[in-house]
Amino acid sequence: MTDLNEVEILLVEDNPYDVELTLTALKENNLTNKVHVLNDGAEALEFVFATGAHAQRNIKNIPKVMLLDLKLPKVNGLEVLRKMKSDERTKKIPVVILTSSQEERDVMESYNLGVNSYIIKPIDFNKFIDAVAKLSLYWVLLNRPPH
Amino acid sequence: MTDLNEVEILLVEDNPYDVELTLTALKENNLTNKVHVLNDGAEALEFVFATGAHAQRNIKNIPKVMLLDLKLPKVNGLEVLRKMKSDERTKKIPVVILTSSQEERDVMESYNLGVNSYIIKPIDFNKFIDAVAKLSLYWVLLNRPPH
Repeated sequence: MTDLNEVEILLVEDNPYDVELTLTALKENNLTNKVHVLNDGAEALEFVFATGAHAQRNIKNIPKVMLLDLKLPKVNGLEVLRKMKSDERTKKIPVVILTSSQEERDVMESYNLGVNSYIIKPIDFNKFIDAVAKLSLYWVLLNRPPH
Repeated sequence: MTDLNEVEILLVEDNPYDVELTLTALKENNLTNKVHVLNDGAEALEFVFATGAHAQRNIKNIPKVMLLDLKLPKVNGLEVLRKMKSDERTKKIPVVILTSSQEERDVMESYNLGVNSYIIKPIDFNKFIDAVAKLSLYWVLLNRPPH
């Protein structure tokens, strides 16, 4: 089990099929050892702010990237993004919106809120795997994260 | 010559050797047709804000990514980033800091200012080419840019 203070990829996704596909892509690239999955926006906020169920976490240990779906139970992705990017303690965490939404309103609002990157989930199975692999390798291996 | 309203990759770099290496990497991935190079921070600001030498540009035509060096003549990279990310007209432009600086101060300040990604230039020739190729493919082909 991943130590929650050492999470490198935080996946916030409620669709079990998309979670499975994403984990498959990460596994193929040996990136599963430090991934953690959360299924709703409320828990995502508890994780990053180290409150509630995640009060034992050190808020200073931040993931290299958060992959954030938009349509989420309890608190939607845009609200999670808004809260994170407007707080000095969490604004530096790289957030990639990973969504099926191609709506211009969602894209523009995400950039306005300060998202780091916005990726549309390919519908095709193999393209989905390829996209997750590329984006994960980018944020885990190429990007220099904040500490 | 690239129509300045259609630039997809805006490279802001004063070191001729790094410019050449970057263009080589882009060429190998068929990405040179819509790249534009600027050599100092002042011109970068004129470009994105469509003023001065770039007053004929339409400010609404934004590149898919700006690759921004930190140590630049006239106006340094952090100041360019600060001005862009604090203006509603330009804050949505994806900015990747591409620098040799590994200084924690530069990394943290970049994230605090809202940089989208921070990449440290590899010293090794082949690794530099590989890094530029990966980051360019990511921002041009995978990321959904704002319009």
